Amino acid sequence: MSAPKKVVLAYSGGLDTSIILKWLQTEYGCEVVTFTADLGQGEELEPAREKAQMLGIAPENIYIEDVREEFVRDFVFPMFRANAIYEGLYLLGTSIARPLISKRLVEIAHETGADAVAHGATGKGNDQVRFELSAAALDPDIQVIAPWREWDLSSRTALLDFAEKNQIPIAKDKRGEAPFSVDANLLHTSSEGKVLEDPAEDAPDYVYQRTVAPEDAPDTPEYVEITFEKGDAVAINGHEMSPAAVLTNLNELGGRHGIGRLDFVENRFVGMKSRGIYETPGGTVLLEAHRGIEQITLDSGAGHLKDSIMPRYAELIYNGFWFSPEREMLQALIDKSQERVSGTVRLKLYKGSARTIGRWSDQSLYSEAHVTFEDDAGAYDQKDAAGFIQLNALRLRLLAARQRRTK
Amino acid sequence: MSAPKKVVLAYSGGLDTSIILKWLQTEYGCEVVTFTADLGQGEELEPAREKAQMLGIAPENIYIEDVREEFVRDFVFPMFRANAIYEGLYLLGTSIARPLISKRLVEIAHETGADAVAHGATGKGNDQVRFELSAAALDPDIQVIAPWREWDLSSRTALLDFAEKNQIPIAKDKRGEAPFSVDANLLHTSSEGKVLEDPAEDAPDYVYQRTVAPEDAPDTPEYVEITFEKGDAVAINGHEMSPAAVLTNLNELGGRHGIGRLDFVENRFVGMKSRGIYETPGGTVLLEAHRGIEQITLDSGAGHLKDSIMPRYAELIYNGFWFSPEREMLQALIDKSQERVSGTVRLKLYKGSARTIGRWSDQSLYSEAHVTFEDDAGAYDQKDAAGFIQLNALRLRLLAARQRRTK
Amino acid sequence: MSAPKKVVLAYSGGLDTSIILKWLQTEYGCEVVTFTADLGQGEELEPAREKAQMLGIAPENIYIEDVREEFVRDFVFPMFRANAIYEGLYLLGTSIARPLISKRLVEIAHETGADAVAHGATGKGNDQVRFELSAAALDPDIQVIAPWREWDLSSRTALLDFAEKNQIPIAKDKRGEAPFSVDANLLHTSSEGKVLEDPAEDAPDYVYQRTVAPEDAPDTPEYVEITFEKGDAVAINGHEMSPAAVLTNLNELGGRHGIGRLDFVENRFVGMKSRGIYETPGGTVLLEAHRGIEQITLDSGAGHLKDSIMPRYAELIYNGFWFSPEREMLQALIDKSQERVSGTVRLKLYKGSARTIGRWSDQSLYSEAHVTFEDDAGAYDQKDAAGFIQLNALRLRLLAARQRRTK
Amino acid sequence: MSAPKKVVLAYSGGLDTSIILKWLQTEYGCEVVTFTADLGQGEELEPAREKAQMLGIAPENIYIEDVREEFVRDFVFPMFRANAIYEGLYLLGTSIARPLISKRLVEIAHETGADAVAHGATGKGNDQVRFELSAAALDPDIQVIAPWREWDLSSRTALLDFAEKNQIPIAKDKRGEAPFSVDANLLHTSSEGKVLEDPAEDAPDYVYQRTVAPEDAPDTPEYVEITFEKGDAVAINGHEMSPAAVLTNLNELGGRHGIGRLDFVENRFVGMKSRGIYETPGGTVLLEAHRGIEQITLDSGAGHLKDSIMPRYAELIYNGFWFSPEREMLQALIDKSQERVSGTVRLKLYKGSARTIGRWSDQSLYSEAHVTFEDDAGAYDQKDAAGFIQLNALRLRLLAARQRRTK
Repeated sequence: MSAPKKVVLAYSGGLDTSIILKWLQTEYGCEVVTFTADLGQGEELEPAREKAQMLGIAPENIYIEDVREEFVRDFVFPMFRANAIYEGLYLLGTSIARPLISKRLVEIAHETGADAVAHGATGKGNDQVRFELSAAALDPDIQVIAPWREWDLSSRTALLDFAEKNQIPIAKDKRGEAPFSVDANLLHTSSEGKVLEDPAEDAPDYVYQRTVAPEDAPDTPEYVEITFEKGDAVAINGHEMSPAAVLTNLNELGGRHGIGRLDFVENRFVGMKSRGIYETPGGTVLLEAHRGIEQITLDSGAGHLKDSIMPRYAELIYNGFWFSPEREMLQALIDKSQERVSGTVRLKLYKGSARTIGRWSDQSLYSEAHVTFEDDAGAYDQKDAAGFIQLNALRLRLLAARQRRTK
Repeated sequence: MSAPKKVVLAYSGGLDTSIILKWLQTEYGCEVVTFTADLGQGEELEPAREKAQMLGIAPENIYIEDVREEFVRDFVFPMFRANAIYEGLYLLGTSIARPLISKRLVEIAHETGADAVAHGATGKGNDQVRFELSAAALDPDIQVIAPWREWDLSSRTALLDFAEKNQIPIAKDKRGEAPFSVDANLLHTSSEGKVLEDPAEDAPDYVYQRTVAPEDAPDTPEYVEITFEKGDAVAINGHEMSPAAVLTNLNELGGRHGIGRLDFVENRFVGMKSRGIYETPGGTVLLEAHRGIEQITLDSGAGHLKDSIMPRYAELIYNGFWFSPEREMLQALIDKSQERVSGTVRLKLYKGSARTIGRWSDQSLYSEAHVTFEDDAGAYDQKDAAGFIQLNALRLRLLAARQRRTK
Repeated sequence: MSAPKKVVLAYSGGLDTSIILKWLQTEYGCEVVTFTADLGQGEELEPAREKAQMLGIAPENIYIEDVREEFVRDFVFPMFRANAIYEGLYLLGTSIARPLISKRLVEIAHETGADAVAHGATGKGNDQVRFELSAAALDPDIQVIAPWREWDLSSRTALLDFAEKNQIPIAKDKRGEAPFSVDANLLHTSSEGKVLEDPAEDAPDYVYQRTVAPEDAPDTPEYVEITFEKGDAVAINGHEMSPAAVLTNLNELGGRHGIGRLDFVENRFVGMKSRGIYETPGGTVLLEAHRGIEQITLDSGAGHLKDSIMPRYAELIYNGFWFSPEREMLQALIDKSQERVSGTVRLKLYKGSARTIGRWSDQSLYSEAHVTFEDDAGAYDQKDAAGFIQLNALRLRLLAARQRRTK
Repeated sequence: MSAPKKVVLAYSGGLDTSIILKWLQTEYGCEVVTFTADLGQGEELEPAREKAQMLGIAPENIYIEDVREEFVRDFVFPMFRANAIYEGLYLLGTSIARPLISKRLVEIAHETGADAVAHGATGKGNDQVRFELSAAALDPDIQVIAPWREWDLSSRTALLDFAEKNQIPIAKDKRGEAPFSVDANLLHTSSEGKVLEDPAEDAPDYVYQRTVAPEDAPDTPEYVEITFEKGDAVAINGHEMSPAAVLTNLNELGGRHGIGRLDFVENRFVGMKSRGIYETPGGTVLLEAHRGIEQITLDSGAGHLKDSIMPRYAELIYNGFWFSPEREMLQALIDKSQERVSGTVRLKLYKGSARTIGRWSDQSLYSEAHVTFEDDAGAYDQKDAAGFIQLNALRLRLLAARQRRTK
């Protein structure tokens, strides 16, 4: 590959991506465009602009955008329609943000005539894969630069030396090394590394940043009603709101009640296991509620099919294949199932858990007339069950007869 | 089919199965053998013996058995190796008990020369299917009698009349109708019907029988360590115990902390939706712990395959196909995966939730050497990731190139 | 259920459905509407009109329709997009026709104010299930009458007696019993029963009706080119034609070369095994060609996902769940995959087999630049493979290290 | 990685692996052990011994082994129990041989104290992956050397120069370049590359090496009976024989009748499409026969489950994951299903196709008593079908009622 001439960098404004910015300028002598996104990570973005300018980036090359609505509407919500969970427990909070960032990086590259994009993910993790597969799927020719896999700044000291030598300001609290690494967006906060590396050891309390400890949550439960339309949450307690507003509100609610903490050892796509602490307060409430509304609006054929393909769907997102034909095919299947997943779920939030306790819908398939213990007025003829069982049993009887015959 | 001459009845000693007992005698003029099992439902069995005798059953025709160890060892534990969950939430507590009862009914029929078995399940539910498919799979010729589908005792009044006419004692509290229906065994208690029939309405507190309300659980968390061998729990806090003892202890622990409550609308195999309240305190803790130990002892290939077949496995058990070739094939797959699922998990129990907070094992696949943020001494070459991504991206690039070429 | 007042009958004009027609009039005293469809079974339809009139059906109650285009366009082609095969071998020729007939029966019931539909399928087969599930899915209240399950005309003699007593003309060759039973439509001919009931015995030659024996096929191969657009065949040897015309032409071609014969023992949905002889000349060629065009236009992610859900899709169609949410969800997935399945396949037809020998497309993903044994001008860096393998091997190495450590 | 001291090379005795042998000696200065296996590729092995000796390999370092029985018994037959087919058509003939070769390479490394193994597969294909994943799974520390990815002998001329410079004899017919590349073993012959690289072009006749053209096959069909025990073929026309003998005989039969030719474009694991010509005469007959015997000995539950996991199983083998937990888990599932897959299948072989025309077994589940069109003496009560359909239809009715209610 030829050396890149103009690179769009996913830039947070922090020390690491500032070092990368400078390294790109130094190593490749290339023009750098910065892209800083508000995904709901809870940090101010304007300082990133100042910092980029200070590092010599031309104003027209600084892109700062609030992508929260797009993030929730086009990525988080479609994923939640599938009840996606990775390895039984993880709600994919980091995984789902990466394709959006890549998409904007590639789009900005096209707008600015850049021939490469760059990211700050290391060579051991999943994020590099997610960034790069997304970029490749959106532009077959674009280069991706992953400085962590290329440079020789392999120790904290080397990084700080490089920063000092290049006049990159180092915040006092960044001199020492952080005791763990954090990623955050509107869906979740993840923490991993260092003090968390022994999976036998309890995670220290200070790791949790977005949820109170269940012990510190209110002593009285709180009840909330979430309304869905076609599989997406559209209102909380009767108040309609935008996708990002829904998630923001649920985060506030869930976080206050200590909901959505997860201590997890997962299998990375790159082949190793890692331990992470995840906090997904709003997402945890949303998943529970979505299941609640599906309980009355999806029939078993649709529901069981969805359940059976879900692990594959979740794996695709985890592995970075959001922009792939197979994810889009599964999405078509899932979206088809959601056309009537509309209605309201009532949940109880208390000390770390969110539980559905009621659900209702114009689209309900629940038929009290059929299920009732009382007289059902002929809705259901119990004698039909005999034939139903008889034919389901037929092949088992033939098997049992063979067993007897041949033993 | 010819009229049965001798019938083995699944007999609880309660009013309903006593009426069935008498009805079988009356309707078919047949000899009745009673089978009463201790599955951990928490009721004394000896009263069933007296009642059966009073209804004219010969002593040698009264079978009363404690099957708790067999239940947990041969049914519950194999199922938990699969992390089986039906429709995302239900731990299959009722479903898993039925095949064992059928198995003993058929075995007792063979021992006593009976030509039929009978059960007290209604024509609307899943249990009739589970009883009857299991019986068919174990004996191709045995008749199954389901009085609820046959008789005309269609109202509470008719039942009580029949009881009185036949000198069946009616406990005072059974005069009125129960406000809901209950099934219980060592794994769970389920409640459904009547006051629970509107899925929009909160379940009343008095429905819960086996768990305290999370609000009433202790204000301080409790920690427990569960040790697994080949996928099965074998010790709690270092004390080895039998399968049934493990589950009994976890029930006590979980129940005390309000763990394992579920308010659920499910799809019955017979085609309708129903709403149930489930309490599975020990099972909920066990599932969380099993997932915890799998996190470090199963590799991703094994784990993802298990996850992908789990919904089908759970559906088979729910639908009554425990004794079927396909359940046994899936079990072979699952059991193969569990050969090294051994080690210990530490959980925190608090106010309704059980969470893994640590896990360790001689069989661990977690490699701190590989995952560490620190110098990994060459365990992992980050440059390999570039090639890994490049080839995973190749087909996406070819797709993107086509997209560009043909647009 | 109350007695039907007006019934739409799937009427072939043959002896059996004429008896049913009369039986409906006699048994229920109801008005009968007949529906006779040209699905490509190769029989004249006008005789059915005369016969219906002779049996007293009012002219406005006789529906005779050519539904071949709808059949191929809306049923056969969508199914072939999935490469659907039941139990490894059967192309579902009977299964796919039933939902269309049910759909028209229900629509005609709505047009004519009928409250029931009736079909001539027996109580042992799959077709009753397919007819009735489709009807239920399209109208929740419509009654379905299946005379074969109801009447007492249980022998050939009883049927003929009924016919004579009711002045139903009996063709001479129907006096004796047919040596096997046949179903035919534009997609296939199936034969089963009687002389075919022993699956160890060769099917006699006279069973085959639509294909020459491979031994009698031309001694020189014939070559054909089939062009696809979005997964559907649209042209043969460069001549564009309608869906039904495509299939008709392929039937002629395939039949002439002895293609598409299948001697098969299958599992019926109702629990028993049956043996059938199927002839699907055009469909067999079409399936081979469709796979051929997918080879160059589908990427592996899309193709493997399709393959993995195909058995379930085929089972749904076989079992009669064409009109079900899960079939529609799978169809959405499949159709999404076909958006660029366009191009041309060249096949060789010879003595019973059809084989792809060439394929080309504007939408091709095949890249000679990448795959070539010659110098690839940097399209592919073989060194990338080392990293790709290294990371795929990582978890296997960790497993092997555990094996060594713990043995 | 440190330089290898002793390397076990998969050595064919041909020019390419002789060059590799010499290159390993030259490049690494290491001791070389050669392993030459008779997998049924149809070449004499003794010339490889002479050649190895001539290239300076010590006699005790030359391993020449006939592994045909192991190949068929432990690799081919287990795979055929699954009816494994990759991408709808390919019988995995190359894929299944690689793990066995790697297993012996690693075992010989252990026996001889070698620290590395080497193979002659290129960096573009699947075989490198299969060799190296297998090696990693069997020994976590062993090095694998893939000279084609490392050296700079990138043209035919460079290779020949190297050979000449190193006194490696070059057969006259190897001076020019072969028009395509071949791999062969007892299961199949594959050809790819060069003249085959345009997937639109017919493969030239001279590519086929193991099967006659169907046009040249006998004009009269041949009939063969294959007997299975537990899923494996054990006898042909009543003659019991070893696994390798079965396959050898079927190859002879199939090849003579032009059976098992495939012109195929596949998706390689490394991300590109390639076109190959495969000849699998015996395997094609075996697959057809295995399906035939399963038709009467497997019930639908077992059969459909097998079908649904087959694509994944085939993909694992194709991708090189034979020695992986998930392949072993699937094998456990498959083997469980085969316990009663015993009996005999009769096939007709003619001009390129092999078709089952009869099958019988003591283990048959086919019940003429149930399926018969004649009086079934009460084996099956057609009225049961009504209840069966009614309950299967219930959810569809509830869906249709919702549709009507809400439109």
